[in-house]
Amino acid sequence: MPAPEDPARVNSTAEPTFAAYLGSVSARVDGTLARLLPPEEEEPRTIHRAMRYSVMAGGKRLRPALCLLGARVAGGETAEEAALPVAAALEMVHTYSLIHDDLPAMDDDDLRRGRPSCHRVFGEAAAILAGDALHTLAFEILGSFPGPAAAPLVRELARACGTRGMVGGQCADLEAEGRPPEVALVEGIHRRKTGALLAASLRMGAMAAGGGAGLLSRLDAYGADVGMAFQIVDDVLDEEGLGRDLGKTPGKDRQRGKMTYPAAVGIEASRSRALALAAGAKERVRGVPGEALLLGLADLVVNRRS
Amino acid sequence: MPAPEDPARVNSTAEPTFAAYLGSVSARVDGTLARLLPPEEEEPRTIHRAMRYSVMAGGKRLRPALCLLGARVAGGETAEEAALPVAAALEMVHTYSLIHDDLPAMDDDDLRRGRPSCHRVFGEAAAILAGDALHTLAFEILGSFPGPAAAPLVRELARACGTRGMVGGQCADLEAEGRPPEVALVEGIHRRKTGALLAASLRMGAMAAGGGAGLLSRLDAYGADVGMAFQIVDDVLDEEGLGRDLGKTPGKDRQRGKMTYPAAVGIEASRSRALALAAGAKERVRGVPGEALLLGLADLVVNRRS
Repeated sequence: MPAPEDPARVNSTAEPTFAAYLGSVSARVDGTLARLLPPEEEEPRTIHRAMRYSVMAGGKRLRPALCLLGARVAGGETAEEAALPVAAALEMVHTYSLIHDDLPAMDDDDLRRGRPSCHRVFGEAAAILAGDALHTLAFEILGSFPGPAAAPLVRELARACGTRGMVGGQCADLEAEGRPPEVALVEGIHRRKTGALLAASLRMGAMAAGGGAGLLSRLDAYGADVGMAFQIVDDVLDEEGLGRDLGKTPGKDRQRGKMTYPAAVGIEASRSRALALAAGAKERVRGVPGEALLLGLADLVVNRRS
Repeated sequence: MPAPEDPARVNSTAEPTFAAYLGSVSARVDGTLARLLPPEEEEPRTIHRAMRYSVMAGGKRLRPALCLLGARVAGGETAEEAALPVAAALEMVHTYSLIHDDLPAMDDDDLRRGRPSCHRVFGEAAAILAGDALHTLAFEILGSFPGPAAAPLVRELARACGTRGMVGGQCADLEAEGRPPEVALVEGIHRRKTGALLAASLRMGAMAAGGGAGLLSRLDAYGADVGMAFQIVDDVLDEEGLGRDLGKTPGKDRQRGKMTYPAAVGIEASRSRALALAAGAKERVRGVPGEALLLGLADLVVNRRS
């Protein structure tokens, strides 16, 4: 009988177990982030404070969780520990993108992770620079990863957050504002804006643990589907106006004429699509070691309420 | 007798020869940049156009020149050729910093390299994203550098442009606006805002060519002094209002109450300080292979009129 304290061996439908796993991930990732961020009392204090304010504001730590999961799948629990800096770098890049996306010239959002957004507290100049500094620091951390994975990790992150990934998605998102919603367009935006980094997070964890090409390719397919499901659910939650739970201004997407999934196909069809994607993702990782956690994550992504 | 076509062997006072070398560097670097930037006809077109607009607008290509010079000093002409992508990455990072610094929330400059600045042509959102994308692309290029230098190059660039380098300098620069000018403060700003990346450019070229620690440390000292001299001369040229030559709005620094060297000590003392720094830099590289080019660069930096 499997040891009950090892969540990887628990029944695949054990979603609360995955939630527990996610909680333990958050604590370890937060500790790593606190250690790797520059101290607030060191100059430039405004930027260091702004970086810490935005990074340590909580959040689901989904990208770090995907990264550690990738490491665990490829190399077990020891590898998970070693991948913590990679997980922290991913959260820094995600936070940099949130800070820049919230700027008045972009999505102009005053609320993020349940608190005033970075530029509302520190001003626009400091917010731009804090985002830039987090962006740089993430690459410094990956470039310092011990062993031969450092350069491949740098390349993988860069591809996921460049114009073919996250930045391209944000640009397409801004350009699509106010246009008639269309499912192919919204999927293209989501795939690049959030999907690329989510899928890369899983792959990078596996790469840090020395995972082979076959495993990486299965994780990639899983990550792409789970990432799309995650974003569709995000759209649905925003549409339903669950602002307090989301930690950002509710209904903001609709208000700005954002190209969302529910705007294109309605809420019910969006939910069905997310469920179908999660089911497909689960099929792709049958038999992979640590399968239960991957299945738990897919379930959590579609069943979450915030 | 040395072959006249090899500028590295020409007399150390041959500044025009260094200018010729700089011209040949620009052409090769521009070719590499044109090849490595994403095609304009590929989506997101606005961002790809904005990236190319700002990067291909000319400029002195000083960082690429320093990089190729570092490579040449450490490994000869073949190494220089191999370091071209590193030189291009440095120019991309420099351009990203110019685009973000010119934003209305930062230095609010409408003119850059003799043309309307990026956000004036493409809008603020696209300018932020184009800067972000250049930042990412630079790290992708370094992470793709063949051989064991890739990860060290990533770390070196990240340190030079993080909060202990370029971003820290830009923050200190903004915070110092309107304060009484003070020479220690202005030197601290220059050392981080421009000096760190200039010194790193030379080091990174040498690193790409497999240069040893002894050479790197001598280049570092030289690069720091030449970088400071360069920035002091920049301040002087701005103060003298040579806007058309500079390619940016003249007198802008004074107008904003920027912490410049001439504001702290006057124009004559600034010129003397730049000359002394250049002389000191030259002393540091006596006997280094390719010395003549390093001496030529130090002279050009203080004698330039634009």
